[in-house]
Amino acid sequence: MTPSASLFGAVLARGEVAAAVGDDAWLTAMLQVEAALAQVQAFTGLLDPAAADAVAAVCARPETFAVGVIGAGAAASGNPVIPLVEALRAAVPEAAAGAVHRGATSQDILDTAGMLVATRALRPLLADLGACADHAARLAREHRDTAMVGRTLLRQAAPTTFGLKAAGWLGGLDAARRRLEQVQRERLAVQLGGAAGTLGAFGDAGPDLVEGLATMLGLAEPALPWHTERTRIADLAGALGGAAGAVAKVARDLTLLAQDEVNEVADAAPGGSSALPGKRNPVAAICAVGCAASAPGLVANLLAAMAHEHERAAGAWHAEWRPMRELLVTTGSAASWLRAALDRLRVNPDVMRENLARSGLTGDLTTAGPLVDRALDALGAKR
Amino acid sequence: MTPSASLFGAVLARGEVAAAVGDDAWLTAMLQVEAALAQVQAFTGLLDPAAADAVAAVCARPETFAVGVIGAGAAASGNPVIPLVEALRAAVPEAAAGAVHRGATSQDILDTAGMLVATRALRPLLADLGACADHAARLAREHRDTAMVGRTLLRQAAPTTFGLKAAGWLGGLDAARRRLEQVQRERLAVQLGGAAGTLGAFGDAGPDLVEGLATMLGLAEPALPWHTERTRIADLAGALGGAAGAVAKVARDLTLLAQDEVNEVADAAPGGSSALPGKRNPVAAICAVGCAASAPGLVANLLAAMAHEHERAAGAWHAEWRPMRELLVTTGSAASWLRAALDRLRVNPDVMRENLARSGLTGDLTTAGPLVDRALDALGAKR
Amino acid sequence: MTPSASLFGAVLARGEVAAAVGDDAWLTAMLQVEAALAQVQAFTGLLDPAAADAVAAVCARPETFAVGVIGAGAAASGNPVIPLVEALRAAVPEAAAGAVHRGATSQDILDTAGMLVATRALRPLLADLGACADHAARLAREHRDTAMVGRTLLRQAAPTTFGLKAAGWLGGLDAARRRLEQVQRERLAVQLGGAAGTLGAFGDAGPDLVEGLATMLGLAEPALPWHTERTRIADLAGALGGAAGAVAKVARDLTLLAQDEVNEVADAAPGGSSALPGKRNPVAAICAVGCAASAPGLVANLLAAMAHEHERAAGAWHAEWRPMRELLVTTGSAASWLRAALDRLRVNPDVMRENLARSGLTGDLTTAGPLVDRALDALGAKR
Amino acid sequence: MTPSASLFGAVLARGEVAAAVGDDAWLTAMLQVEAALAQVQAFTGLLDPAAADAVAAVCARPETFAVGVIGAGAAASGNPVIPLVEALRAAVPEAAAGAVHRGATSQDILDTAGMLVATRALRPLLADLGACADHAARLAREHRDTAMVGRTLLRQAAPTTFGLKAAGWLGGLDAARRRLEQVQRERLAVQLGGAAGTLGAFGDAGPDLVEGLATMLGLAEPALPWHTERTRIADLAGALGGAAGAVAKVARDLTLLAQDEVNEVADAAPGGSSALPGKRNPVAAICAVGCAASAPGLVANLLAAMAHEHERAAGAWHAEWRPMRELLVTTGSAASWLRAALDRLRVNPDVMRENLARSGLTGDLTTAGPLVDRALDALGAKR
Repeated sequence: MTPSASLFGAVLARGEVAAAVGDDAWLTAMLQVEAALAQVQAFTGLLDPAAADAVAAVCARPETFAVGVIGAGAAASGNPVIPLVEALRAAVPEAAAGAVHRGATSQDILDTAGMLVATRALRPLLADLGACADHAARLAREHRDTAMVGRTLLRQAAPTTFGLKAAGWLGGLDAARRRLEQVQRERLAVQLGGAAGTLGAFGDAGPDLVEGLATMLGLAEPALPWHTERTRIADLAGALGGAAGAVAKVARDLTLLAQDEVNEVADAAPGGSSALPGKRNPVAAICAVGCAASAPGLVANLLAAMAHEHERAAGAWHAEWRPMRELLVTTGSAASWLRAALDRLRVNPDVMRENLARSGLTGDLTTAGPLVDRALDALGAKR
Repeated sequence: MTPSASLFGAVLARGEVAAAVGDDAWLTAMLQVEAALAQVQAFTGLLDPAAADAVAAVCARPETFAVGVIGAGAAASGNPVIPLVEALRAAVPEAAAGAVHRGATSQDILDTAGMLVATRALRPLLADLGACADHAARLAREHRDTAMVGRTLLRQAAPTTFGLKAAGWLGGLDAARRRLEQVQRERLAVQLGGAAGTLGAFGDAGPDLVEGLATMLGLAEPALPWHTERTRIADLAGALGGAAGAVAKVARDLTLLAQDEVNEVADAAPGGSSALPGKRNPVAAICAVGCAASAPGLVANLLAAMAHEHERAAGAWHAEWRPMRELLVTTGSAASWLRAALDRLRVNPDVMRENLARSGLTGDLTTAGPLVDRALDALGAKR
Repeated sequence: MTPSASLFGAVLARGEVAAAVGDDAWLTAMLQVEAALAQVQAFTGLLDPAAADAVAAVCARPETFAVGVIGAGAAASGNPVIPLVEALRAAVPEAAAGAVHRGATSQDILDTAGMLVATRALRPLLADLGACADHAARLAREHRDTAMVGRTLLRQAAPTTFGLKAAGWLGGLDAARRRLEQVQRERLAVQLGGAAGTLGAFGDAGPDLVEGLATMLGLAEPALPWHTERTRIADLAGALGGAAGAVAKVARDLTLLAQDEVNEVADAAPGGSSALPGKRNPVAAICAVGCAASAPGLVANLLAAMAHEHERAAGAWHAEWRPMRELLVTTGSAASWLRAALDRLRVNPDVMRENLARSGLTGDLTTAGPLVDRALDALGAKR
Repeated sequence: MTPSASLFGAVLARGEVAAAVGDDAWLTAMLQVEAALAQVQAFTGLLDPAAADAVAAVCARPETFAVGVIGAGAAASGNPVIPLVEALRAAVPEAAAGAVHRGATSQDILDTAGMLVATRALRPLLADLGACADHAARLAREHRDTAMVGRTLLRQAAPTTFGLKAAGWLGGLDAARRRLEQVQRERLAVQLGGAAGTLGAFGDAGPDLVEGLATMLGLAEPALPWHTERTRIADLAGALGGAAGAVAKVARDLTLLAQDEVNEVADAAPGGSSALPGKRNPVAAICAVGCAASAPGLVANLLAAMAHEHERAAGAWHAEWRPMRELLVTTGSAASWLRAALDRLRVNPDVMRENLARSGLTGDLTTAGPLVDRALDALGAKR
C-alpha cells in the first residue's frame, strides 16, 4: 500500500509517514528484531554465534519473504509473528532453526517492531513539524511589525501583528515537537519478556539481553517487560494527538484568513473545483484540517485499550494496531499538508493593514514586537 | 489493497467489507454515479442521449482508469473527482465531453459514491451479523434448558441457562442489524446539488433528476442536497458503533467462558503461540474484541466532523473519509470474526452443569425456558 | 445541583435538561420504579395489594428521602439502589417490608429509572430542537428569495439564497429530532430480570409484569432483560450525538456569518468582553458550538462500554452513568443555546445582497425557491 | 456540589479531586488571580499599591461572593469572569475600581484560574496514585517469590509470580505519576495577554508581570500568551488519560483474579447485592474500572477542541471546561477507588500455588525474583 498509488492517499496520507508504517516497513522491522534477538543471545553465550549469524543473514533480506503469505498465515493465530517465525525457521540452515525466536513470545517481536516502526515514522513527521515551525518563526520575524486585526470569538477585537500570530503558531508547533521527541527518546522501548514476561528462557542474562537489544535497535531500555503496561502507547498517542491539534490550529487560522472577505493570506497553489473552474481554494490548509481531525478519536481508542488483561491481553493488544498506524499516518499527513500550506503561503500585509484601518480599531502595538523577539529567543528559534 | 495480501489484513480486515470499500470499489461507484448523472439528464432532455450513452459506456469500464493516476491527481485539488472528471472527458468522444459531470460538483459525486460503497459494504456485514444472530438463536434453542452459573460483576450470582444467555446475545445482534438495515434503507441517499447546492444547472428538472438518480442507483431520495447536513453520516456511524458493541459483548463473553478456570466453551480451531506450542487461544473471539474496539473513536471522529461550514466544508468533509472507511472495515471484521467464533464454538454443557453444582448456587430455573421461547418469537427467529 | 446556581451552569447546562437529570429527578424516578414494581406484582397476585399500596405511598414522597444519605450509602456497594431499598424498607410498615424491591435486582431499578430520566430529559431537548426547526422553517420561508453568496471551502463560490441555507438547517434539525423521537418511543424500555435475568422470582407472571411495568411507566416493553445487552444505550447515545452535530452545524454557520467582515447576521443580545466594552459577540451561537463539542467523546465512552460481561458487568455499567448524564445535559444545553441564538437572530438581507453584488458571482437562482418549497413540504413544516 | 452529598458522587467522584474542581475552588482561584494581577502591577509601578491592596483584600474573601449570582451573570456574556469583575468593582472602594482586572481579558483570568484548579486537583490525585504505587511495590516485595499461573489471552500460559505481576502494576502507575508531575511542573502556566494577546496594556512591563504572576501563583511562566495555543491542555489531558488507563489495568486484573473460579485475590470489604444478600463483589476495583472508562472520550473532546480560531476561539474554549473538569474528577475517582481496592486487598497465595499446581504448567521461575528487584530499584521504589 503506497499512498501515492491509492485513490485517497495523496489527500489522506501525504508525506513519508505512510510508507514508514507500511507492510514492508513492518516486515523489515520484525526481521531486524529477530536478527538482533539472535545476535544478543550469541554475545551472551546463549546461542552459537554461527547460528545467530545465519538467522541474521536471512533476516537481512526481507524481500525474500512474501508479506501476503505471512499476513494470510496470521489468520490462524491472530498475529503475523507466528507465520513469520515458521518462514524464518524454514529459511535458515537446519542447524540454526533452534536459534530463531529463541526465548521470545510473539508480542516481544511485534511490540519491539512497532516501536521501531514508530520511531522511524516520527522522523519525517518531526521533519515536517520542524519545517512548519521554521516557517512560523520566519513569518514571526518578517512580520514582526505588520499590524493587523486581532479577532476574538470571530469578531474584530483589537489590533495585533501578524508576527505575533505567527509566533503563537510557533509556540504550539514547537511544544508538540518537543513532546514527540521526548516520547521518541524516552518511551519507545524494546519489549522482551518471553511467554509470561519472566525472561525465563534467558537465565541470568535476561537484563543484559534487554540492554543489548535496546542498544542494537536504538530504542529505550525498559525496567520491565511492558506486555500489559501500556503507558508507552498512551504517551505516544497523546503526543501525536497534541501535534495534530497544534497543526489544526494553524491550518484553521489559514482557512479563516483566506476567506474572500478577509483575504489576508492565500494559497499560491490553490485547489480548483469541478463545478467552478476559477475557484481558488486554500487546499493545503483544508487538507491539514481534515487529516488532523482524525486524531482525537484514534487517541481515545488507544487509551480505551489500555486495560490489558493479566500477562497478555485478550483483544486489547490487537485493538492497538489499527489506531496507532492510522494515528501516525493522519498526523503525519496533517503536518505534511501544513508544511505545504506554509511553503506556498502568500501573505498580504497591505490587506492586513487596510482591514485594520477599515475596522477603526486602535490600540498600542509597541509591545507586540518585543514579545515576538522574546518568544523567538525562548523557543530557541535560531531559525 | 486487498486485505488478504497485507500483513495485518487477515486479522484486522477479515471478511468482505474491506474489498467493498477498497479503491476499486470506490472508482467503480464514482463512475456509476457519473454515468447515472448523464443518463438521467438524457431522460429529462437536458442532454443528448447519444452523449449520455457515450459517457455511460466509458464509465462501465473502470478497469481502463488508472486508480493511481487519479489518486495522485487528487493532491492538487484535494479530492479525486476532479482528476477523474478530467480523465473521463479525455476518454469520451469529443462531442460527449460536455455531457460529463454536467451540473454537478465534486461532492455530489463523492458523496453519492460513498453512499453506494457504504450500502454495498453493509451487505456482507449484515450477512455476517445475520449469521451470528442465527447462531445465537440456534444456541438459545439447543441450550434452552442447559443450566449454568449466572455471573454478575464477575462473581457467581445465581443459576441461569446457556439458552437465556444466547438469547441475550441474539437480542443485541438483532437490534444492531435492524438499525443498520433501517439506516441503509432510509438514510443512505444520493447527493445532487451543484456548486452551491441550488440544483441551478438543471432548471425545473432538478428534483426529477434527484429522484431518477436515486432510482437508478438504489439509494434514498433526499428532500434537499445534504452537502453540509451530515446527519446521514452520523446515523450510519452510530449504527455501526452499536453493531460493533453488540459484537464485542458476545465476543467478550466467549473469551471469559473460555478461560481454563471456567472452560464452558472452546474455540474448535484455537490459535497457538510462538512461545508455547500447546496453547489453545480462542483467537476468533479475541480478534472480534480487538476489531470492535476501534469503532467508538471513529464514531467520535465522524460526529465531531458534523459542523460543515456554509455550503461546503473547509476540512470537515475530508475528515469523514478515513474514519468512515475504517469504521466499516473494523466493524465488518469484528462481525466476520464473531461469525467464525460461533461457527466453530464448542459448548461444554457438562462443564456448565458441573460448575453450577460446584458453586452451590440454587434458584428457580423454570422461568428461563419460556423466556427464551418468548424472545425467539419476538425477535422473529424463524431461524 | 441546580445548574442556574453554579458557576458554569448558565453556560454549560442551559435549559431544562440539567434539572431533569439531577439527583432529585433520579431519586423520584427510582422510587416510581419501586412503586410500580410493587403494584404490578399486586395486580398479578404476587403481592398483597395493601403491602404494595404501602410501598407506593412511601415512594410517592421522595422529599422524605435524604439524597445525600443514600448517595453516601452507595459507596459500600457501588450503586445507590441498595441504600435506597434499605431506606424504603425502614420507611414502610413492617408488614410491607417484604413487598419492597421484591424479585428485583439493583440494575432493574437503576436502568428503568435511567430510562425514565432520559425520556423526561428528552422532552425539553425535543422542544428546543423543535423550536430551532421552526425558526429554520420560518427563515426558509421569509428568505426564500433572499440572494446571498454561497461559500464553499470558506471561499465565495456561487450565489444561493438564505432561504435555502435555512432549509438545510431545518433538514438537519428535523432529522435529528425524528431520530431522537424514534429512540424515545421504541428503545427506552423498562428493565426487569432479577438477579440473573431469569425473572425467576416471578414464576409464570414474569412477562406480564414486564408488560405492566412498561405500561405504568410509559416505557417500551423489551423482549428480554437487557442488563448486558446495551444497544438501547448506544441508540440513545448515537441519536444525541447526531443532534449535537446538527445543532453545531447551524451554530457554526451563525458564527461565520456574524464575522464583521461578513456581517450578514447578528446576535440581537450580544455578549460583551471584560477587556473591550463595546464588543458584540454572537454569544448564543458560540455557546451552542461549545456545548455541542462535548458530545462526540461522550458517545465514544458509551459505545466503548457496551461489552458488559456475562449477566451483569464489572465496571462497564458504572461507566455509563456519568457520560449519559453529561451527554443529555450538553446536548440539551447546545439546543437551548441555539434556540436562543435563533430567537434573537438579526438577519441583514441587505448586506447579503451587497456582499453578493461585491463578489461578482453570477448564477441562476430560479431553482432555489422551489427547492425551499419542496423541502418545507417534505419536512412536514406546517410551521 | 460536594460529591459525598449527591446520589452518584460516592461512586463516580470518590476522593478529593471533585471538591478541588468545584465551584468554590474555581471562585477562590479566580479571585486569587485577580488579586495577584493587581499586586504584580503595583510592584512594577503600574498601579497604586493601596489600590492593589484593596483589590487583594476583597479577593481574599471569596465567601462574600455569591457563586450563583456570578454564575447566572455568565449567561449574558458566556463566561463567569465578566460578572465577577463587575462584582469585584462594586466591592472595592471606588478609588480602587480602576485597579480591578486592569489590562486583562476574561480568558487571562479563567485560564490561569483553571491551571491553579488543575494543579491543586492533581495533588490528591497524585497522592492516590502514589499510594497505589506504594501498594504495588509492597506487593511486589512481599510476593517476590509467590508462584502463580501466568495468563495470556485469558488462557493459562506459563508460571509467573505475583510479585512480578505487581511490579508490572507499579511500572504503569509510576510512569503515569511521573508524567503527570512533569505536566504539572512544566506545562501548567499562567495566562496573561490582554484583549488581543499583545500585553498591550502593560507597556514594557508585560514580561515582568507574567513572570511575577507565575511566581506568586506557583505556576509555570509561558514564553507567550497561549489563548489559542492549547498544547498545554492537550498535555494535561493526555497525561490524565494515561493515568486512567494505568489504573484501569490494575483494577481489571483485580476483578479477573477475584472471580470465584480463580479466587486468588478478594476485596476485604466487598459490596453486596440488593437481590443476593451473600454476594461479595470486588466493588472498589469495579468502580475503578467504571470511573477510568470515562477518560478516553473526554481526552478526545479536549484534543478535538484544540483548533482555537485567531486570537480567541468562538466555542472551542468553552468546549474545554466541561471535559477538563470531568476528566480530572473521573481520573481522580478511579485512582481513589484503586487505592481503596489495594488498601483492602486480600491476597490468597495458597490459592495461587494450588491453581498453578492444578494447571500442570511448568517453567523456570528463578529469573522472576531478580527481575522484581531490578524493577523496584529502577522505579526508585525506596518504598
